[in-house]
Amino acid sequence: MRIAPLFLNSSRRLLFLSRMASNKVLTTENINPQVITMQYAVRGPIVIRAVEIEKELAKGANKPFKNVIKANIGDAHAMGQKPITFIRQVLACVSNPSLMETGKFPSDVIEHSKTLLGGCGGHSAGAYSQSTGIDVIRKHISEYISKRDGFPCDMENVILSGGASESIRNVLKLFIRRDGSKKVGVMIPIPQYPLYSASTEEFGLGQVGYYLHEEKNWSLEENELERAYQESLKKFDTRVLCVINPGNPTGQVLSRQNIETIIKFAHKHHLFLMADEVYQDNIYAEGSKFHSFKKVINEMGDPYNKMELASFHSVSKGYMGECGMRGGYVEFFNLDPQVYVLFKKMISAKLCSTILGQVVMDCVVNPPKPGEPSYDLWLKEKTAVLDSLKQRATLVKEAYGSIEGIRCNEVQGAMYAFPQIELPQKAIDKARSLGQEPDFFYAMQLLESTGVCIVPGSGFGQKQGTYHFRTTILPQPELMKDMLTRFKSFHTKFLQEYK
Amino acid sequence: MRIAPLFLNSSRRLLFLSRMASNKVLTTENINPQVITMQYAVRGPIVIRAVEIEKELAKGANKPFKNVIKANIGDAHAMGQKPITFIRQVLACVSNPSLMETGKFPSDVIEHSKTLLGGCGGHSAGAYSQSTGIDVIRKHISEYISKRDGFPCDMENVILSGGASESIRNVLKLFIRRDGSKKVGVMIPIPQYPLYSASTEEFGLGQVGYYLHEEKNWSLEENELERAYQESLKKFDTRVLCVINPGNPTGQVLSRQNIETIIKFAHKHHLFLMADEVYQDNIYAEGSKFHSFKKVINEMGDPYNKMELASFHSVSKGYMGECGMRGGYVEFFNLDPQVYVLFKKMISAKLCSTILGQVVMDCVVNPPKPGEPSYDLWLKEKTAVLDSLKQRATLVKEAYGSIEGIRCNEVQGAMYAFPQIELPQKAIDKARSLGQEPDFFYAMQLLESTGVCIVPGSGFGQKQGTYHFRTTILPQPELMKDMLTRFKSFHTKFLQEYK
Repeated sequence: MRIAPLFLNSSRRLLFLSRMASNKVLTTENINPQVITMQYAVRGPIVIRAVEIEKELAKGANKPFKNVIKANIGDAHAMGQKPITFIRQVLACVSNPSLMETGKFPSDVIEHSKTLLGGCGGHSAGAYSQSTGIDVIRKHISEYISKRDGFPCDMENVILSGGASESIRNVLKLFIRRDGSKKVGVMIPIPQYPLYSASTEEFGLGQVGYYLHEEKNWSLEENELERAYQESLKKFDTRVLCVINPGNPTGQVLSRQNIETIIKFAHKHHLFLMADEVYQDNIYAEGSKFHSFKKVINEMGDPYNKMELASFHSVSKGYMGECGMRGGYVEFFNLDPQVYVLFKKMISAKLCSTILGQVVMDCVVNPPKPGEPSYDLWLKEKTAVLDSLKQRATLVKEAYGSIEGIRCNEVQGAMYAFPQIELPQKAIDKARSLGQEPDFFYAMQLLESTGVCIVPGSGFGQKQGTYHFRTTILPQPELMKDMLTRFKSFHTKFLQEYK
Repeated sequence: MRIAPLFLNSSRRLLFLSRMASNKVLTTENINPQVITMQYAVRGPIVIRAVEIEKELAKGANKPFKNVIKANIGDAHAMGQKPITFIRQVLACVSNPSLMETGKFPSDVIEHSKTLLGGCGGHSAGAYSQSTGIDVIRKHISEYISKRDGFPCDMENVILSGGASESIRNVLKLFIRRDGSKKVGVMIPIPQYPLYSASTEEFGLGQVGYYLHEEKNWSLEENELERAYQESLKKFDTRVLCVINPGNPTGQVLSRQNIETIIKFAHKHHLFLMADEVYQDNIYAEGSKFHSFKKVINEMGDPYNKMELASFHSVSKGYMGECGMRGGYVEFFNLDPQVYVLFKKMISAKLCSTILGQVVMDCVVNPPKPGEPSYDLWLKEKTAVLDSLKQRATLVKEAYGSIEGIRCNEVQGAMYAFPQIELPQKAIDKARSLGQEPDFFYAMQLLESTGVCIVPGSGFGQKQGTYHFRTTILPQPELMKDMLTRFKSFHTKFLQEYK
């Protein structure tokens, strides 16, 4: 124990003493306050408890269930989805190029791998790439976007990153201010994917929530955008509009008309558009179709095709579900060229995103073509995953929709349902008495009694007085049925207990 | 072109008009100002120009050299170093588990891969891990640290990340304040690795440079630490001390005595220690030895073994040089438990680091053991790389040391030399007339005339009036000789021109 030196002046002596009290340099008293306030529910306390329960089960703990079913996160492989063979063959060849000589891999896998290694420093995936990513992959991404949209994409506007999350966070960072002036407001949907709330909070940006219209299948309406924008101006300099399409956690697919409305709104208020389009391959509902913001902006012509847009894609979702690979990209459109130079400088301090993640991104945007040896298997595997997801999307909606006190919109796309639950007042009171959000209380009870792990709606945002949860549609069919059975039985008991 | 609505009040109308002038939502006028001021020289303008020159050469441009030699960045594979077979075999098996059935891989590779896949969700590297990383890898890291130091390491204190850079940035983030109070000062060496200057600038932290003593082979002296600390208090609340050992860009290896001095200094001023130890395997000089801060702190006993420490390691350096894989970790020691909970919450919004990068980290801390089938080859490859680096460390020091007007300290460790160059006054004047730092001017001339890409000392910091550059020791021996020949001939001409 050290003694506070007497020669220090009183304020420094006080500081010294207070530091001694905690005995730590870094404490919750002096930590970056945003780290305290930010929340990321998808990996929040319920999920931490789920991991603990798994460890307890592994040690032989006696529970009313044998396993935890993690429906909390869009993690397809963890829920039993098998990798796409083509992707994993390319990964193996790029990681260990001597495999290309074994005669065991299809010629298009080898050709693909050689092209990618040709883009790597020293022909090794162990070399850094440029911070923007490997050029040949940027080129393939730009070709994919051009073909998808029917409008040209310049590869110079594409930057690879470790998942889409990293790009989204990098773009948001551009709007940080530390000079005490009004915070830049960022419009995000409510309910939203908590990456947005966590990052805006961490970066000291202003979170401007606009509510999606639950009764109209989570559509996005102009008058609500307008209300949120106008109210935000009292506190913030609102300059960014984030849209997630297909929706997370809400599973809606925006119509072309809806996207036009959003674009016109953003134009009217001179907003920077961020389009989170990581679920662009996950469209299930009859009549639903994915329209990229880039395409619609271009189709709308002048002046909309001059608007600034950042759009994001990822290897973690779609039919491949390669979350652990950390591949993704941002495409900028109409970004101020000087801003772009600064952006590239900013990301250079992080060196580059993982080369193997970039490789997976390449496989996604540049898959086998008809006539190539890997094509048939690739198409079969892709179709099987998407068909199965489509079935599970229907199953989830029907199953939850049939339970008393639960309403569930159609899962038009993405990987989630966000059902609304009517909680009995007694349950709400009980939760409040424990200092918990009612849907958090519900989700924790569900986990402890059945092993089913979902995320309470309060982690995504919801209209006051309503309660929801997010569940993925990812458990494989058998497990999904098991989950729904456990859920139904819990819910019935819960309603009885708190009636 | 839109017309500024007349109904807006004058200040909003002005804003509207100024926005219209640039026509962009996001401009250099309103971008996050830290993005403008931060610099990252290792990928700065000289390197950008080097990439351009490579593209010009590929298109057949006529230059006085045939290729660019990139000695700007510690990127071993890009400079021709071959990957370690064991690592790449494990990567291939983890990526494509069906390869384990082919009978083509050694049994320890298969066993290693199976253990790792057992730690992955759904036994797939495509699943997310916990944000802290895969548990079995954290366990192997903790065993590695315990064995290295002779003091226990709890796996719960280890967190994997995308390279060491990500962990370093995450720890620095804990010290951000946005409430207008004094910035937290972070002590960093001068010269330093620009990750530190770039990140402290980006995060709005206070950069407190302490000079390394060039004449004493870049050692770190207490009186200089004290001077820097005391001066910093006028502006900052200085609470963090970063040490890079072995040194980047300076290549020194701190003696045990020197580390003790640093620890006592940090204790005296209640500083949080950050030890960047990514070059721990890169020790070349006779008599030099790597001492981890964790070990020395523990050996020093009470009260030093109560100090907070974060230490960092990476797969990018050492003998493996797997930069593109983005694997690394931080070990916390004595961190306040509540702070640790907040740290884990903060990183959860980034989901997890790449699984394959984590896999490479595992191979580094848990390599083949004597008697296992991969051991002999692994040891041979590892030894060959480290021996060759040791030779090149000597070669570089001797070669630069023999050139008029250049002084080069011994490269005791890491991968860099940081020679001092005496620039003629005429060259300095010429540079200033172009608005350039003199060593930047020198490095750019070197690049344009010879294709040799180095980083000017001004990107790392140096004593006023001195000029340096950082070069890696990574070009393979033949290329290294070529580089040194080009350099010598350029330097001689340069001195003549500006004499």
